[in-house]
Amino acid sequence: MSHIFLLFITLLSFRTSNAADFCIAKLKGAPNPSGYACKNTDITADDFVFTGLRNAGNTSNPRGSAVTPALVYQFPALNGLGLSTARLDLAPNGVVPLHTHTTASEVIHVISGKVTAGFISSANVAYVKTLIKGDVMVFPQGLLHFIVNAGNTPAVLIFTFSNPDPGLQLLDYALFGGDLPTPLLVKTTLFDTATVKKLKAVLGGTG
Amino acid sequence: MSHIFLLFITLLSFRTSNAADFCIAKLKGAPNPSGYACKNTDITADDFVFTGLRNAGNTSNPRGSAVTPALVYQFPALNGLGLSTARLDLAPNGVVPLHTHTTASEVIHVISGKVTAGFISSANVAYVKTLIKGDVMVFPQGLLHFIVNAGNTPAVLIFTFSNPDPGLQLLDYALFGGDLPTPLLVKTTLFDTATVKKLKAVLGGTG
Amino acid sequence: MSHIFLLFITLLSFRTSNAADFCIAKLKGAPNPSGYACKNTDITADDFVFTGLRNAGNTSNPRGSAVTPALVYQFPALNGLGLSTARLDLAPNGVVPLHTHTTASEVIHVISGKVTAGFISSANVAYVKTLIKGDVMVFPQGLLHFIVNAGNTPAVLIFTFSNPDPGLQLLDYALFGGDLPTPLLVKTTLFDTATVKKLKAVLGGTG
Amino acid sequence: MSHIFLLFITLLSFRTSNAADFCIAKLKGAPNPSGYACKNTDITADDFVFTGLRNAGNTSNPRGSAVTPALVYQFPALNGLGLSTARLDLAPNGVVPLHTHTTASEVIHVISGKVTAGFISSANVAYVKTLIKGDVMVFPQGLLHFIVNAGNTPAVLIFTFSNPDPGLQLLDYALFGGDLPTPLLVKTTLFDTATVKKLKAVLGGTG
Amino acid sequence: MSHIFLLFITLLSFRTSNAADFCIAKLKGAPNPSGYACKNTDITADDFVFTGLRNAGNTSNPRGSAVTPALVYQFPALNGLGLSTARLDLAPNGVVPLHTHTTASEVIHVISGKVTAGFISSANVAYVKTLIKGDVMVFPQGLLHFIVNAGNTPAVLIFTFSNPDPGLQLLDYALFGGDLPTPLLVKTTLFDTATVKKLKAVLGGTG
Amino acid sequence: MSHIFLLFITLLSFRTSNAADFCIAKLKGAPNPSGYACKNTDITADDFVFTGLRNAGNTSNPRGSAVTPALVYQFPALNGLGLSTARLDLAPNGVVPLHTHTTASEVIHVISGKVTAGFISSANVAYVKTLIKGDVMVFPQGLLHFIVNAGNTPAVLIFTFSNPDPGLQLLDYALFGGDLPTPLLVKTTLFDTATVKKLKAVLGGTG
Repeated sequence: MSHIFLLFITLLSFRTSNAADFCIAKLKGAPNPSGYACKNTDITADDFVFTGLRNAGNTSNPRGSAVTPALVYQFPALNGLGLSTARLDLAPNGVVPLHTHTTASEVIHVISGKVTAGFISSANVAYVKTLIKGDVMVFPQGLLHFIVNAGNTPAVLIFTFSNPDPGLQLLDYALFGGDLPTPLLVKTTLFDTATVKKLKAVLGGTG
Repeated sequence: MSHIFLLFITLLSFRTSNAADFCIAKLKGAPNPSGYACKNTDITADDFVFTGLRNAGNTSNPRGSAVTPALVYQFPALNGLGLSTARLDLAPNGVVPLHTHTTASEVIHVISGKVTAGFISSANVAYVKTLIKGDVMVFPQGLLHFIVNAGNTPAVLIFTFSNPDPGLQLLDYALFGGDLPTPLLVKTTLFDTATVKKLKAVLGGTG
Repeated sequence: MSHIFLLFITLLSFRTSNAADFCIAKLKGAPNPSGYACKNTDITADDFVFTGLRNAGNTSNPRGSAVTPALVYQFPALNGLGLSTARLDLAPNGVVPLHTHTTASEVIHVISGKVTAGFISSANVAYVKTLIKGDVMVFPQGLLHFIVNAGNTPAVLIFTFSNPDPGLQLLDYALFGGDLPTPLLVKTTLFDTATVKKLKAVLGGTG
Repeated sequence: MSHIFLLFITLLSFRTSNAADFCIAKLKGAPNPSGYACKNTDITADDFVFTGLRNAGNTSNPRGSAVTPALVYQFPALNGLGLSTARLDLAPNGVVPLHTHTTASEVIHVISGKVTAGFISSANVAYVKTLIKGDVMVFPQGLLHFIVNAGNTPAVLIFTFSNPDPGLQLLDYALFGGDLPTPLLVKTTLFDTATVKKLKAVLGGTG
Repeated sequence: MSHIFLLFITLLSFRTSNAADFCIAKLKGAPNPSGYACKNTDITADDFVFTGLRNAGNTSNPRGSAVTPALVYQFPALNGLGLSTARLDLAPNGVVPLHTHTTASEVIHVISGKVTAGFISSANVAYVKTLIKGDVMVFPQGLLHFIVNAGNTPAVLIFTFSNPDPGLQLLDYALFGGDLPTPLLVKTTLFDTATVKKLKAVLGGTG
Repeated sequence: MSHIFLLFITLLSFRTSNAADFCIAKLKGAPNPSGYACKNTDITADDFVFTGLRNAGNTSNPRGSAVTPALVYQFPALNGLGLSTARLDLAPNGVVPLHTHTTASEVIHVISGKVTAGFISSANVAYVKTLIKGDVMVFPQGLLHFIVNAGNTPAVLIFTFSNPDPGLQLLDYALFGGDLPTPLLVKTTLFDTATVKKLKAVLGGTG
């Protein structure tokens, strides 16, 4: 039997770290362009499971939508593995407003309900489709896209991204919820000053 | 107004192809290491939607499981976008046997039911967990993993992979369902000849 | 001397294609996710030089700006090399409206004139700066950015992208110049129907 | 002459780190998904040379094989360079049992002796070949593969991997040498409980 | 209004770091193969702007050239973004001697003046062209290239690289300005000892 | 039993191509930046084996060296797998002259004999070491390197590259064996016209 264990030891010397298998993020340190440093101790099955998507998000808000993320920040085992996910709850009439992900493509699954989803290509063509339970749609990287409830019942969707940290630029908030000065915003879009000021007031934008 | 259209034309000249946005696979040609050539005409919203996961797969088989894939082969819009997906139907007592994906990590979502899922690391440690509806688990690239129904009802899961074509090596079929000669299989595993012959008979293996 | 040539011949056998060095795009074929097929014959120095940026673009349009691209479509030698470029001419009061590049970061150089440039981060923070001749700014991938002339003279800038085909989504055109139906646009933004209809009329949008 | 040195100094300012050239791993820190942090001082030619493969490994074990690795853990200069290597010594009748590398393809060279090597594809096809001194074989990423001595003399091989840390999942050890509970193993394979228990006893598996 | 802010807060939880957008280098720490760790605080528009290329470099040196770099070392915002840049000033008769970049392709723009630029392919073919103001040329990764002033006036060029840290190997300095022992240099090139010694004396080489 | 085959069929539908496993190059077509199109039929074990390195190359040439390549051109199974290899035969006093690989790092193994090998870093530091049988050295991507026989017997080495097509720029041939005009070569190096003309005569250079 000891011969067996000799081999076992030799083979184990082939690796002295988990890094070849996975790299659970130590979120407290600074990331670098490839992600976070790897946690190397106290790794259990719990690290690879995320239970935070069990319950519906609170859709009692003006948009009637709630996105519950499972990105590397919430689910550190995704670090370096090229994937992340999220749950969408969408009230009747709920909306996921136009937005982009800066560094990820996205696949959506309709788990329940009926939605209309779409994206706009570089050629300004809108690819829009109404989806029912079981349907899947893909939004290519970096393009503006949206989802609206198209039925009378709440909808639940799952999003999956091709990056543990897909980035997010929400159009309304980027334009009217931040600090880009109104004159610059008016100059670099077709919106007039009155529209900009009104929408900044709604979203708390400054500048 | 014509001035506006002058700008429009100038800006459109910035691109003369959809390739920067997406690259829907022309599956009939030979792929290359980056995927398939792009279809450039007759693109509609239907290209970006896959409806083949709406219905449950047929689990009336000995494993009590059915995987319905939405890989680049079934859903060509995924070509080059770094993602693919699949639906799993799992009867009570159903099993997804041990397997690996050669070039992809995988995230699973439990849509309904209760399953026990796990993977085995390079250190031969099994990370196993029982998951309920709403739970998410990640299987790092290339490692053996499995899912079994842990409840009394059918279970439905969604799989997402970090590659449009994730590869698949099913352990039992790789070992006993193909043509690796029995003496080589016996020599390169701890299985004895009788076991190998018996299992080859079950799975139709030759050699 | 013939011995020398023996070695020469041996070494040449090390390669039988230019593909390791460069891959000038054959634009007529379909690209795939890594770019275009390589032209292998009739390669001269002219293939590696682009003269189309010598002259100012025509800024006699409502935005007072002209972008002259040198992407893989105009300059096929860039295929596979991870770079592309463009020239911007900006009249006094000229504007490059808010837009994103879906798959590239961008570095800009001010060659002449004075501009105000900026981008909006995922946190809705605007990073804005007035730049003079010689200044360089970087716009990280996928984020909304803009440039406006901040002086009394024309400005010239050079853009460089981290991708031979960086993609382009011009905000105004994506929203109001394409075919996304007005009700969906109203529902997925904070714009009201009147605003949307007015801007669609300006940019020729339908739907 | 000082003019020359002026240029020299200007040019040196082009770089202030060795990172563009190489990144010798500081193994004591935590890696991240791209590898280890770079050692920046006390770099000598010895860092780029590994002498640990000079001597034959000890093949006095039940498998008659010894793998001596030169991965990033043993040879830190490989960090970030996309390669690693190992030496195999194989006694007559020696075996490298079925295994996979999770994140690397592998090229093998037969330095001496005669071996039979093979891998199993996703289609369960075994590609098997007997190799003699000087032969090269490639095992694509993630697929089960093996090597057995096919001669009467010891064999020596060199392995090279497309990753500084290729990962390793040895089939027998993954199945029977770790802690995956026997009922789960029986359920997710075609092995019966008696076989599993017997092999767990051989390899020290628990669960 | 508070409902709006509820959504805002939900959406912000989608990200807890700037890493998805950008990763400004903390240069004091050790890099790793993907670049430097990210600075996460005190980020302003100044971080994304580099003013160090405003002024001409000092070309009063024997080569009549000055390269002013804007690599990740000088312009930390480039970290992870796949680009860097530099300014070249070239006196009449100025020369950028033969050199390679180890990990980047390069695009050059002629801002003023007239230059002859070229590179040598693996097939030992020189691709050489005289460029005037506005012309662009690309040097594929890793190949020897050069630029010489071809006019009677100073020239200014902009270089852009496909890597924040493109590496640089200047042929003359690599051969004659370092410490490669003369006998080895003579043996591995066609240069004779006298030539090597003479040029080492010029450039301060040792060995 | 038919139930088993039902599952088998379901699982096979998961893949309809070998592309996820390997992509043996069809060399007759044009490559693209990711490599060659995949051969999909008539694949046998022979495709994955290369026997062309069995025999010593002919070192009866002035450099006393012969490199026998096993790149994607000779060994098409390497396409897309991130590796290639070669055999070096080196007579006593044999030399592999200074050269670079444009897109690959390299690991060398000394199979027999004794050599002195080295590379020159961007800082013009030579990392040189004498290696004996069994030693391994790594040359980081893009840097000038060389090997000379340091013993009295022939030496045999194996090279492995991190790219199926690593590129090759042999310094002497690039400078003096091609068509770069002598005046440009003199101007962009420290070599005088007489030296350039003499070496061009040796290597057959023109221009």
